[in-house]
Amino acid sequence: MSRESRLLEKERGQVNFNVEELTNIYDGGAEETKLRRKVADVIQNDPEVRCKDIGMMTREERYIDGVRRCVYLYKVLLPREGWTPVSKEVSHILRFCMSFGVHAGVFIPCLLSFGSDEQIAKWLPLAMQFQIIGTYAQTEMGHGTFLRGLQTTATYDKKNKEFVINCPEISAMKWWPGDLGKSANHALLMAQLVIDGKKYGMHPFMVQIRDLTTHMPLPGITVGDIGNKVGFETTDNGFLHLNQVRIPRENLLCKNAEVKPNGTYLTKASDKMVYGSMVRLRAIILESEAVSALGKACTIAVRYSLVRCQGELEPGKPEVSVMEYMTQQKKLLPYVAMTYVTHFACLKLSNQYNAFTREMDNNDISGLPELHALSAGMKAVVSEQCSDGIEILRKSCGGHGYSNASGIPIIWSSAVACCTYEGENTVMLLQCARLVHGMASYNAWNQSSVELVNVVKAHITQFIVTTFASGITELECTKPVKNVLQQLCALYALSCINASTGDFLKVGYLSPRQCDLAHEAELELLSCIRPNAVGLVDAFDFSDDLLQSCLGAYDGNVYERLFAWAKKSPLNKTEV
Amino acid sequence: MSRESRLLEKERGQVNFNVEELTNIYDGGAEETKLRRKVADVIQNDPEVRCKDIGMMTREERYIDGVRRCVYLYKVLLPREGWTPVSKEVSHILRFCMSFGVHAGVFIPCLLSFGSDEQIAKWLPLAMQFQIIGTYAQTEMGHGTFLRGLQTTATYDKKNKEFVINCPEISAMKWWPGDLGKSANHALLMAQLVIDGKKYGMHPFMVQIRDLTTHMPLPGITVGDIGNKVGFETTDNGFLHLNQVRIPRENLLCKNAEVKPNGTYLTKASDKMVYGSMVRLRAIILESEAVSALGKACTIAVRYSLVRCQGELEPGKPEVSVMEYMTQQKKLLPYVAMTYVTHFACLKLSNQYNAFTREMDNNDISGLPELHALSAGMKAVVSEQCSDGIEILRKSCGGHGYSNASGIPIIWSSAVACCTYEGENTVMLLQCARLVHGMASYNAWNQSSVELVNVVKAHITQFIVTTFASGITELECTKPVKNVLQQLCALYALSCINASTGDFLKVGYLSPRQCDLAHEAELELLSCIRPNAVGLVDAFDFSDDLLQSCLGAYDGNVYERLFAWAKKSPLNKTEV
Repeated sequence: MSRESRLLEKERGQVNFNVEELTNIYDGGAEETKLRRKVADVIQNDPEVRCKDIGMMTREERYIDGVRRCVYLYKVLLPREGWTPVSKEVSHILRFCMSFGVHAGVFIPCLLSFGSDEQIAKWLPLAMQFQIIGTYAQTEMGHGTFLRGLQTTATYDKKNKEFVINCPEISAMKWWPGDLGKSANHALLMAQLVIDGKKYGMHPFMVQIRDLTTHMPLPGITVGDIGNKVGFETTDNGFLHLNQVRIPRENLLCKNAEVKPNGTYLTKASDKMVYGSMVRLRAIILESEAVSALGKACTIAVRYSLVRCQGELEPGKPEVSVMEYMTQQKKLLPYVAMTYVTHFACLKLSNQYNAFTREMDNNDISGLPELHALSAGMKAVVSEQCSDGIEILRKSCGGHGYSNASGIPIIWSSAVACCTYEGENTVMLLQCARLVHGMASYNAWNQSSVELVNVVKAHITQFIVTTFASGITELECTKPVKNVLQQLCALYALSCINASTGDFLKVGYLSPRQCDLAHEAELELLSCIRPNAVGLVDAFDFSDDLLQSCLGAYDGNVYERLFAWAKKSPLNKTEV
Repeated sequence: MSRESRLLEKERGQVNFNVEELTNIYDGGAEETKLRRKVADVIQNDPEVRCKDIGMMTREERYIDGVRRCVYLYKVLLPREGWTPVSKEVSHILRFCMSFGVHAGVFIPCLLSFGSDEQIAKWLPLAMQFQIIGTYAQTEMGHGTFLRGLQTTATYDKKNKEFVINCPEISAMKWWPGDLGKSANHALLMAQLVIDGKKYGMHPFMVQIRDLTTHMPLPGITVGDIGNKVGFETTDNGFLHLNQVRIPRENLLCKNAEVKPNGTYLTKASDKMVYGSMVRLRAIILESEAVSALGKACTIAVRYSLVRCQGELEPGKPEVSVMEYMTQQKKLLPYVAMTYVTHFACLKLSNQYNAFTREMDNNDISGLPELHALSAGMKAVVSEQCSDGIEILRKSCGGHGYSNASGIPIIWSSAVACCTYEGENTVMLLQCARLVHGMASYNAWNQSSVELVNVVKAHITQFIVTTFASGITELECTKPVKNVLQQLCALYALSCINASTGDFLKVGYLSPRQCDLAHEAELELLSCIRPNAVGLVDAFDFSDDLLQSCLGAYDGNVYERLFAWAKKSPLNKTEV
């Protein structure tokens, strides 16, 4: 056993709470932990879907690997295990870097949301069998978050009972949709509906883009991959240009609005309903992409910092683990706390959404504006805090944090994208402000927007802290676990306060003396939590397969793993 | 001409100062601008060394491209143009993504610093001709910034008059050195000198690691590439394990210390001198890697924000460029200011180093501790501010900021490495604190280190601002240029103050009312500077070849460039 492994074992010996108990709380119950582990076992014991070492792959290799594993998953593994594509098991499987995330996670759910029963009956079975592979084509080269500005049109041709889909200029091209570049043969496409020269706003259309046999693009279609980018290497984000492409009238997904053969436009449901599904999607994304990524980065940085010995605290004494330095504790432990605190805030958001859907069944959508504001603000604050935190954790690993061997560069690159997709963060913060505070003159709004962004961040942070604090109070658990959760709550709150003392001092909410005390209290908490550090990240229960990190593996055997990993570099295939 | 190009042209029409005048000031004089442009012309007109579109390349392709261009540069271009490898022209050329940065930028200078005249005469001509290709092997897998902890030993064998170089365990392996993995056949290697069982500290040795004809590793040597990482794709950062490798006694580089044949150890110069070259290296790196990268990212984000139209400031009015939003101005313009302000602070650091070398010639090294502290603090503060800023600028470009087509992901990845190499930033900040403030008990030091880090950041920021402010006063230039420089200085200072109001309020240095005024003043400055935004980034004078960005090219023709770029994605080579 290496010196590093022994150090980590020793650390585990001093943890003063039951790690398994905390894992169960984090998962939402012991049954959930059991299910999650069962799925992980199935994946890890099947060499066809088990995560490969992606750190050394080129983008093309990662894409092909992701596609291959995903097809195997749906065609072989799910039938074998008797799991359906919408089962809880599959939501756990999607943590293992699959492709076709948009087909499974957006195209199919949107078909279910926007399609009539007849349309669902027609397309869903084909999508489930991968006979049609779909993308969700909304964002254009020239417009993203500002949906009303999208330029692609769907003009109704009464004579032929068809829609003519067209991109009027280069910036109207669809740009970024996942699974579009190489994989998809259909697009659930958002376009401006035009009937008799009148615009009716954005509507969803089902557009076939490639031949189902030859996979060649259909006439009028230009489609391809948009190239290398930050993260999402397994995904073929694509471009799609449509030049007067004709589709049948029946391909307007018509659950909420319909165009009759004679061109009459009929609406059936409030267009506000779309906000409901946005809330749900944001809560899922935040947890699965941002908070879980932060938890992985914490696991890696904490385990590595405990075994990485460098420098002397006192001259002549042996070198100490870098976790002994207060500056390192200050870099790491507040993010461990943040992972716990925001995890439960995301859970609360999901629960509020579920409560809202029950009210909606009684035709009560009065809770929607507040829920929408909360989800927009949470989306922005949590994704920013998590991606900034991951980057700080990466740098806390010193030089090795820059190597893909650490796992953190790949974790960061997928988490940081949450800051922009599903609504650019600054726009989200201002939407939250607008929905909660209302809005007066446009010029005054713009002038005060810098302040408003900060106000919303503070508001959301307060929501996150109070949610967690009241959650602990209600929690039934052993005293040591309750104790560490209370410490984490206090640490997160204090680190937020200490980063914004100006706001508290300016309005007299804290005195200078109280600021000093808050700073001292944070340092004291760091020292209290530090002996439990390894237990707190072990409790997230990320397997080595999920972490894909030489620095953060459970056994702490850092240096041998690093060397074994480096030897696999493609540049080492030949000696000369 | 596209709508976007017309928008940028219109912006240039309203700039109220002479851009060329500011470029000359930034370059340090009109002659410097002329030289820089002459070199750029030579590079851009020679297809063999001109920058290729690296955004779509795999790492292996970038490495091979970098090596090929670098060999052509030294073997063909320099002799053709009559430029020597240490000429000013070559320092400009190195901005064009070459390989062999360590051979040219570290190995050769260190040979000159550590070698005797005889040793220099032996190895320098070979290195200049690429007959030997060298790396600088200091960092080990287990130790980086803490140099005394390095484990590789060089034990003197009196009988055979040889040193025996050995890595006693896996973590003692050299790790990270650039050009080591595939290219280098020699290493300037730092190892713990041992004579008769006594340790004499780190010393530099010249070690041949590969056969000069076959390029195969020599006996006892294990060498290779360490794999994929954040940035440095053109570089084969490597690992090097030495198992009882014997080198002649003459291969200890002996300008400062020597081992006589009988094992007698002789020192010739103060080991403090090594700090002098660290100061120089840091000033160069900060300017060439961090500040210049920030300037590139500003250029891209500002030009793109001026032509990207999205959303309405007032309902029903046409869409506006995103630069009209105050939140966007607040994201971009303080970093334009930071580029100018820190550029001149780096220049000041270089000048102080030059003044010091003149004092050193008179055997006066009393200025060294302060200079060393300043360079350590500057290194940490500037590299962090620049890399954090580049990431904010990247996200300010929305979705397209994530694409390599924007150019910013690659710019960021090389700039962020400055936070860790040449001394990890937190260690640098604490060294700065220790050198300026002294140090008492080790435990008290650790307890106060979190505060000390903040104190040093404030101290360095103040140095940067006052350097720039006094520099403007002395500057001879037209009034409009002086005016914008003063605005930039105020904007940078105010943005720093407004980000740290807590510190100012706590000690009563600012009142709450003054904080409000500082915030208002910053917003007003943003509005004043905004009409000049394009002129301020044009004045950095980065050519399109250097920017490698579809979003930030001089003509603003964003969307056609993006589409042309995407079509080159390797995944689009085949249609199916």
